[in-house]
Amino acid sequence: MGQKRGGGDSSAARRECDIARWHGEADVIVVGFGAAGACAAIEAAEAGADVLVLERASGGGGTSAMSTGQIYLGGGTRIQKVCGFEDSADAMYDYLLASSGPGPDAEKLRLFCDNSVRHFDWLEAKGVPFKESFYGEGSYTPTDDCLSYSGSELAHPYPDVAPPAPRGHTVQQLGIEAGVQLMQSLIAAVETTPARIAPDHHCEALVRDEADRVVGVFTRHFGEERCYRARGGVILCAGGFIRSREMVERHAPWLARVRWAMGTDGDDGRGIRMGTAAGGEAIRMHTGCIVLPFTVPKGLLRGLMVNRSGQRFINEDAYQTVVGEAALLHQQGEVYLVVDDAIFETPMPPVEIRAVGESIEELERELEMPEGNLQHTVASYNAGAEHGVDPSFHKAKEHLQPLGTPPYAALDYRVEHSLWSVFTLGGLHTDTDGRVLSPENAPIPGLFAAGRTTSGLAAQGYSSGLSIADATFFGRRAGRTAAALAR
Amino acid sequence: MGQKRGGGDSSAARRECDIARWHGEADVIVVGFGAAGACAAIEAAEAGADVLVLERASGGGGTSAMSTGQIYLGGGTRIQKVCGFEDSADAMYDYLLASSGPGPDAEKLRLFCDNSVRHFDWLEAKGVPFKESFYGEGSYTPTDDCLSYSGSELAHPYPDVAPPAPRGHTVQQLGIEAGVQLMQSLIAAVETTPARIAPDHHCEALVRDEADRVVGVFTRHFGEERCYRARGGVILCAGGFIRSREMVERHAPWLARVRWAMGTDGDDGRGIRMGTAAGGEAIRMHTGCIVLPFTVPKGLLRGLMVNRSGQRFINEDAYQTVVGEAALLHQQGEVYLVVDDAIFETPMPPVEIRAVGESIEELERELEMPEGNLQHTVASYNAGAEHGVDPSFHKAKEHLQPLGTPPYAALDYRVEHSLWSVFTLGGLHTDTDGRVLSPENAPIPGLFAAGRTTSGLAAQGYSSGLSIADATFFGRRAGRTAAALAR
Repeated sequence: MGQKRGGGDSSAARRECDIARWHGEADVIVVGFGAAGACAAIEAAEAGADVLVLERASGGGGTSAMSTGQIYLGGGTRIQKVCGFEDSADAMYDYLLASSGPGPDAEKLRLFCDNSVRHFDWLEAKGVPFKESFYGEGSYTPTDDCLSYSGSELAHPYPDVAPPAPRGHTVQQLGIEAGVQLMQSLIAAVETTPARIAPDHHCEALVRDEADRVVGVFTRHFGEERCYRARGGVILCAGGFIRSREMVERHAPWLARVRWAMGTDGDDGRGIRMGTAAGGEAIRMHTGCIVLPFTVPKGLLRGLMVNRSGQRFINEDAYQTVVGEAALLHQQGEVYLVVDDAIFETPMPPVEIRAVGESIEELERELEMPEGNLQHTVASYNAGAEHGVDPSFHKAKEHLQPLGTPPYAALDYRVEHSLWSVFTLGGLHTDTDGRVLSPENAPIPGLFAAGRTTSGLAAQGYSSGLSIADATFFGRRAGRTAAALAR
Repeated sequence: MGQKRGGGDSSAARRECDIARWHGEADVIVVGFGAAGACAAIEAAEAGADVLVLERASGGGGTSAMSTGQIYLGGGTRIQKVCGFEDSADAMYDYLLASSGPGPDAEKLRLFCDNSVRHFDWLEAKGVPFKESFYGEGSYTPTDDCLSYSGSELAHPYPDVAPPAPRGHTVQQLGIEAGVQLMQSLIAAVETTPARIAPDHHCEALVRDEADRVVGVFTRHFGEERCYRARGGVILCAGGFIRSREMVERHAPWLARVRWAMGTDGDDGRGIRMGTAAGGEAIRMHTGCIVLPFTVPKGLLRGLMVNRSGQRFINEDAYQTVVGEAALLHQQGEVYLVVDDAIFETPMPPVEIRAVGESIEELERELEMPEGNLQHTVASYNAGAEHGVDPSFHKAKEHLQPLGTPPYAALDYRVEHSLWSVFTLGGLHTDTDGRVLSPENAPIPGLFAAGRTTSGLAAQGYSSGLSIADATFFGRRAGRTAAALAR
């Protein structure tokens, strides 16, 4: 019965007394060399700790390198000021608190917002490049521009909650390469410290002493067992679990329907399982960032997002992750964007036109929707839009344009027919200093975590850039805490 | 840092070497004396094990005694046959598999359905009384009747999935007292075995040996520490966590909005925390059974459930927990039931009339809904209902009645204004034999669980009676497994 626990590839914690020999040791061991791991390593090393970074791939980067390189920062960063945007820590906090519910981690949000400007400065000082520019066409910057709106700040109800400001800070590099640039810069910064990097080390389990303190890591290096002792602590920065089919199906089965799982092979949940096996608690395991990318080009925001009954269900200018969450979780992922000829633009592939009609009535028939529903939806929307209002869902005036130029089309954004993307947001519960907590909020001695191995700033109502913000900000704090413990 | 772990009321597992003395021992220790614990104790004792039941209250009963005493059973039970209903294990399985998604535990469902008739017979043999009668007015039986429809079997799309049959089997006793009757019968059955009952024992933590095997329980008896050794295993049957505000807010914050938390003080999540602290995994912690009790009297099913925008969002004849789940999670809990004078009946208190109008237009205005939406909803519904169809949501023909007799009213079923009820469905992951599993599906040696301490047959799309079915069926299996281990 206990067979699986001791051997094989189990992430169950090992006992120190069972470790035949240590292959190396350090004050602080960092597991995973993405953005969280890099920032943890820098801070721990700069605090004087002897740091060892274990990475399963042959080099650093992780999922952060695959990302769009966007970081959610605000409160009046240098770039925000240069571009003429006012912001404050309070406005940022009020927005994030209101948009990240239910049950956001208010303490983490407050600390993050209060220190966001300083964190931006730190990233710049470490060599991460940001251009002094604003990109107004959407959250994702195909150019090398920096600042953009990457959340629902301008959408109902948030302008009434807090003064809006763009807070997506994308690293200076063309398009998707910005994530690579971010990691190149952070890896270079790590390399200026004495921290040691050990690639090709697949971490399998933590090692605990008799008092249940985490004192090391059990790894495999090209198949061979290697154990490393940590005098101060171990920091798990090993990514999320979107690439573990079993974990996704157990914890967040609806996410399995999304075609593009954003992650590397490393996002197999191993870090989370190592942490829970050592007594940590995993929380919000059902949550994910669900991207329904219908806002490229931006003019498509003027279309109407409808469900299979022909009803609207959200203001279309809510951020694409918020629309994605509502569409997947509340509308079974069966949604269409209805446009007329005046609004139509070629959407970002691969999106197909599901139906076309010379009238809304014809379109409704083509979509096999209940008779009259879509007609009512469009007529009601048009009646408001002509007066610049959207009484049902409060879409902002600038995106309101009555549909009236035939032909009409329904773009197929059903989850199985379109390229939505997704990653997991659940993970280990940590305090603001990166300590992994038990189900009763007791820190697990010697264990820390950051990045998508943890449940962090975002749960639901995701704004883009929060994951890398989380990873870098709390990765740094975990590094400092673990280093202090080693002394 | 480790301060909270060792002392106080932590549920972190204790080490056997730290136990000064054992105050007693048994082959099998059962924690909690509700339906799951009683059934586990009976089976373990009948298998020849020396059984000790530890209960924090002064007597058995738990939340099962507070329940409606309804048990979801089928496949052709004696009562189903006597009442003239055909059923099969396959039909039951097909319905439960389709309605409990996404991500139901197919293995548990299959086993449960295949053995449901035998389980019913066992309950009867143990003295649990069931009347040979069918109650057709709803799921809950205010009378002492037995059989009723307690799920969505008759509602779209399930009649197309599996032949419907009523499977709610309520213990013979008037109304809410049926739960008390269930527990009186089960406790009496336990008392015919040699199993020992120890009330007033508040279990705080499990005790593990050096190999991490669960070997006992740390309890408090009127404040005094008492430790009990388990030679075979410990079975956690300690309820869910709806009475732990902190756990609800962390894991399922939306459930905190529901006014009636169905549970005893024992539903504080302690059993789940004891289990995770010993290496078990908690799953589906965000799920709950959310009851929106608008179907008493049953004629109100003919009303229209609408959201704050005046849209329908579900077939109103879906089971009240399914409507509750959609209303709370997808419609922010802001829903009304729209009726006309012909349909109106006094609803089960405390439900207030939010608005009245001589026309739907007036009602819409009173409710401050976007102009035209409710009018369209009712006109569209009426057009279909006149032909016995509901093209939008497929409510069954028998509940379709056009609204046309003024005045019209909106009954206030908003979650904060009406008496919804809720309990948690997340908990420890167990196999079909009641073994608690680690995040990697390895059984935790010596540890078992059943009832709402586990995530069982139901996740979402709850049908009433599944929790007691789960508790009794898998409680029995856990009892047998633990007893076998003790030999």
